Amino acid sequence: IKRLAVLTSGGDAPGMNAAIRAVVRTATHHDIEIVGVRRGFSGLHRGDMRIIGPRDVANTIQRGGTILLTARSHTWRTPEGRAKGAANLREWGVDGLIVIGGDGSFHGGYFLQEEHGVPVIGIPGTIDNDLYGTDHTIGYFTAVETALDAVDKLRDTGASHERIFVIEVMGRHAGHIALEVAVAGGAEEVFIPEDPKPVDGVVQIVKDSVAKGKASSIIIVAEGYPGGATGVSDAIEKGTGLETRVSILGHIQRGGSPVSSDRVLASRLGEAAVYALMDGKKGVMVGRENGQIVHTPLHETWEKSKDVSRDLYRCAKMLSV
Amino acid sequence: IKRLAVLTSGGDAPGMNAAIRAVVRTATHHDIEIVGVRRGFSGLHRGDMRIIGPRDVANTIQRGGTILLTARSHTWRTPEGRAKGAANLREWGVDGLIVIGGDGSFHGGYFLQEEHGVPVIGIPGTIDNDLYGTDHTIGYFTAVETALDAVDKLRDTGASHERIFVIEVMGRHAGHIALEVAVAGGAEEVFIPEDPKPVDGVVQIVKDSVAKGKASSIIIVAEGYPGGATGVSDAIEKGTGLETRVSILGHIQRGGSPVSSDRVLASRLGEAAVYALMDGKKGVMVGRENGQIVHTPLHETWEKSKDVSRDLYRCAKMLSV
Amino acid sequence: IKRLAVLTSGGDAPGMNAAIRAVVRTATHHDIEIVGVRRGFSGLHRGDMRIIGPRDVANTIQRGGTILLTARSHTWRTPEGRAKGAANLREWGVDGLIVIGGDGSFHGGYFLQEEHGVPVIGIPGTIDNDLYGTDHTIGYFTAVETALDAVDKLRDTGASHERIFVIEVMGRHAGHIALEVAVAGGAEEVFIPEDPKPVDGVVQIVKDSVAKGKASSIIIVAEGYPGGATGVSDAIEKGTGLETRVSILGHIQRGGSPVSSDRVLASRLGEAAVYALMDGKKGVMVGRENGQIVHTPLHETWEKSKDVSRDLYRCAKMLSV
Amino acid sequence: IKRLAVLTSGGDAPGMNAAIRAVVRTATHHDIEIVGVRRGFSGLHRGDMRIIGPRDVANTIQRGGTILLTARSHTWRTPEGRAKGAANLREWGVDGLIVIGGDGSFHGGYFLQEEHGVPVIGIPGTIDNDLYGTDHTIGYFTAVETALDAVDKLRDTGASHERIFVIEVMGRHAGHIALEVAVAGGAEEVFIPEDPKPVDGVVQIVKDSVAKGKASSIIIVAEGYPGGATGVSDAIEKGTGLETRVSILGHIQRGGSPVSSDRVLASRLGEAAVYALMDGKKGVMVGRENGQIVHTPLHETWEKSKDVSRDLYRCAKMLSV
Repeated sequence: IKRLAVLTSGGDAPGMNAAIRAVVRTATHHDIEIVGVRRGFSGLHRGDMRIIGPRDVANTIQRGGTILLTARSHTWRTPEGRAKGAANLREWGVDGLIVIGGDGSFHGGYFLQEEHGVPVIGIPGTIDNDLYGTDHTIGYFTAVETALDAVDKLRDTGASHERIFVIEVMGRHAGHIALEVAVAGGAEEVFIPEDPKPVDGVVQIVKDSVAKGKASSIIIVAEGYPGGATGVSDAIEKGTGLETRVSILGHIQRGGSPVSSDRVLASRLGEAAVYALMDGKKGVMVGRENGQIVHTPLHETWEKSKDVSRDLYRCAKMLSV
Repeated sequence: IKRLAVLTSGGDAPGMNAAIRAVVRTATHHDIEIVGVRRGFSGLHRGDMRIIGPRDVANTIQRGGTILLTARSHTWRTPEGRAKGAANLREWGVDGLIVIGGDGSFHGGYFLQEEHGVPVIGIPGTIDNDLYGTDHTIGYFTAVETALDAVDKLRDTGASHERIFVIEVMGRHAGHIALEVAVAGGAEEVFIPEDPKPVDGVVQIVKDSVAKGKASSIIIVAEGYPGGATGVSDAIEKGTGLETRVSILGHIQRGGSPVSSDRVLASRLGEAAVYALMDGKKGVMVGRENGQIVHTPLHETWEKSKDVSRDLYRCAKMLSV
Repeated sequence: IKRLAVLTSGGDAPGMNAAIRAVVRTATHHDIEIVGVRRGFSGLHRGDMRIIGPRDVANTIQRGGTILLTARSHTWRTPEGRAKGAANLREWGVDGLIVIGGDGSFHGGYFLQEEHGVPVIGIPGTIDNDLYGTDHTIGYFTAVETALDAVDKLRDTGASHERIFVIEVMGRHAGHIALEVAVAGGAEEVFIPEDPKPVDGVVQIVKDSVAKGKASSIIIVAEGYPGGATGVSDAIEKGTGLETRVSILGHIQRGGSPVSSDRVLASRLGEAAVYALMDGKKGVMVGRENGQIVHTPLHETWEKSKDVSRDLYRCAKMLSV
Repeated sequence: IKRLAVLTSGGDAPGMNAAIRAVVRTATHHDIEIVGVRRGFSGLHRGDMRIIGPRDVANTIQRGGTILLTARSHTWRTPEGRAKGAANLREWGVDGLIVIGGDGSFHGGYFLQEEHGVPVIGIPGTIDNDLYGTDHTIGYFTAVETALDAVDKLRDTGASHERIFVIEVMGRHAGHIALEVAVAGGAEEVFIPEDPKPVDGVVQIVKDSVAKGKASSIIIVAEGYPGGATGVSDAIEKGTGLETRVSILGHIQRGGSPVSSDRVLASRLGEAAVYALMDGKKGVMVGRENGQIVHTPLHETWEKSKDVSRDLYRCAKMLSV
């Protein structure tokens, strides 16, 4: 292997730069060149790529976002689009492609490999943590911390004004962020897509909470829970007559300097991705489970799903007493 | 003067605890006792009050919210409610009342003084900074910092994904937060209540921005601008065909540990409020203008208004080139 | 079991409050009362204890330090001191004691159990992460984040001024914090007690770094590495003639609001400690390994040691290229 | 005026990038080109300069450090060195030079103007805030916030462990940072170069503090106070027999993303510097006093001195009761 390409795709996540940096420096250490592709598959299709060396990634490990940029690509959905991308990679003499993103991005890489034989390795980079084959995804820890900081701030004002806050965090299909933030934020209740319990239960919880003398209530809702924060808020106001405030954190959760756990995870997985290609692996995502590097076929990342921790879910309930 | 009362009222603001602490410690220094009233005028009406000493406010200067709590009071709007509050103050032997809050809260204090002769001093505590008679209000600096942190985070992801973000910050009647955040956040455009310019202008700005090669755009909107962030976002999407993301920061801006500027301002004004009562002043708000303590009749705080800095507004425009 | 006691001992760590809260709320959920002992074994000896309920721990999960306070106890080192403590526990009708701290604190608990039959459970609370029987200790994640924030700040100024910074982080006997901070901070080199490599090697690293055009160098040193940051700094200055700046972070690393990972770990372990006593376990520390709760005999926590991740150590080296 | 040059010199300060950005964008707005000089006067001497446009400063307003780098220059101290720099400016067709830095840097600019007629404007960029002619210097607000964050963290652990912390903050000749941090951090005592009071007084303060039941003490010392934090710590330990912990924050205070107040100040002063040159001014520093832009002859910035706020100093004392 002489030369590899790397791109970031889909929603950006804090720590992607640390992964790019690790790919570049691990490769350099083994005399492999890295071609950086800008704007994901869109840039691969357009040939927007250039060699990046160790100095190009200096001082990036602490930066949010991705220096390679990311974009949606409509052309990539067509065989012609992918053929063009494969031709660009051949032209640059690339021996393998590393895709940093979520399962949608891995899908894009998978087709490229299937149709054009380019070895593809995935690195899980998405704040939602909803990828099978790794305990955590790059960006998840930072997104949790950002959401938690917002919850702490709302708690300050909620405790002073005795208010009920309903906070919607990211997670279209998964409640990982919501659940961790609920436990860490000491929330009274949490609603996640994985447990479609009726929203009405929260009414009694808020009433009990008031009866117990709790000055304020914090309710966390994953965006993927049916009805979202607005639905939960409406149910509370209707059922208790108490005023609630809805806060939808949104894309703020994607930004910010990555926390240490994301940087370390990204560093380990960036290294592992290069090693995987050096070892002749292809069509797999590198992940970390129980502290060990593991490899999972790309297609399993979208065919299988990773449940939230049921222990933590139970714990969240009990500690909100 | 032997004994004074202090309360926080209206929306809580970071730094209120630093003001309470300064009131208590300045008073103690001059052998005056402080009665802390809980839940604002509502607590004053109900007689929810107790003596607080220097140790009660230890380790509170860095805390968000208010240890005295705050609440809306419906009873206070009636002469009977206020008479009950005045009676409670007499019962406790209180010689004067310090009200920490915004102009609505000062109104409540003003009536108490007019009707029952209780000397009242106001301390400006509100994140909106929309009070005549002081360059800044307690909580403003922290709210700006919180909003700015969100803008920085959105910039990370906006720059990576080349997105347009429309961010709504607090300020129902005033654009102080919006304007400062726009300058400090390097926003492309800012909409404030003080300048009802048509929303359509932003369409050309976004188009120019794209033409100049700017990867992303950040638009700041004060909540008091007609239509809010949603209105601005709709105009952009309709006029440019580009997708935008709306982020409404909401009550997060009220929380958090106060930044230094708020703690210092609160410390100075808490001290000044006690001195004002010792000097026989009443019916005034203590404020800080050009670094000096000033006193403004309470009624002027709602009769007069403070404009945003027109220099800064012009500067915001030019630097967004 | 009707009543349990809990104390924090040794150096305080962020997340201790989250552990206390989880102990109290889990116990309450199972109709067990909790006696909170203030100032660790010193307070146990003096009988400084009181019942704490679910409301007493409200709004504490986000607070640094420990609401139960901690202290060194000289009396506890004597059999008489421990006998007095055991008598106090009997007087309060306590059926078991939960000790939150490090191995020194567990020692104190171990003797109490051995000599007086009080069932003791340990919860690992120390920023150093140097306890056998758990992947991480409560406070470690926050300490890493605090140190990393300092490194990021030094990198800003180092990159601008092209300076060499030698930063000493906590870890008297262990390099866990140093190693993680080195990887996450993109440091050029790291010195830990677990690898007594000669300090001279860093001279060549700094020279190479300068030759490669690196504007600045960041060197991380665990306080337990012989000579500390000062020794490393002296070696660099002597060997390269370049000026270095030493930064010793010290106790700042103990403070601050705990990050999510510490709060969640503390919540899980607090719950597990109560369950352990309910299950009749005693003389063990509850820990978390590979996401699962595990129990380790207290004496193993000081007899055995936990190595740093050798994979991470190797990774740190390669990525600093 | 067709072309201006800008450089940053001396110790870097957060907000310098915001000032550079404002210089570039204000100039562009008036069809003036900006030449960016790298590494201060050292780069001016070596001719290390290039044109920078509005896009070059995009996404820099939130970055710490300085994109133009800074360095010490020995050659600049000689007339020959300055003649070389003046020749470089002439070669680039530069009509004026903007120097962002402290009084040492202004000295360098002053000589250039006196000897070679190049119009020079200074922008106050230094965390110490010790420049005559402006209420605040760029970087000061951020340095205060960074030091305050450290104090808050030490308070957490100090309050839990009942310790005495002596914290040294930056300020070789001035106590501005120390004083503000002392008030905002609720410190028990502060030592600044402006008031050479004997260190022994602190002994009684700590004793009183313990007598009053204060769990911990925070003492702030400016680095310019004779003996520094170590001297104060020694005095306390000798006089009270209590153990103290010294924390020297050092260069961390130079780093970090600038807070809003620094970004806004830098934006205003960057704009004002360009306007000053356009108005034919030279040999002055632009500053902000009472919210207004003012101009002060460069030589006054080192001939005159700015005192700390005596009101604040008195306030610090009283509130520490």
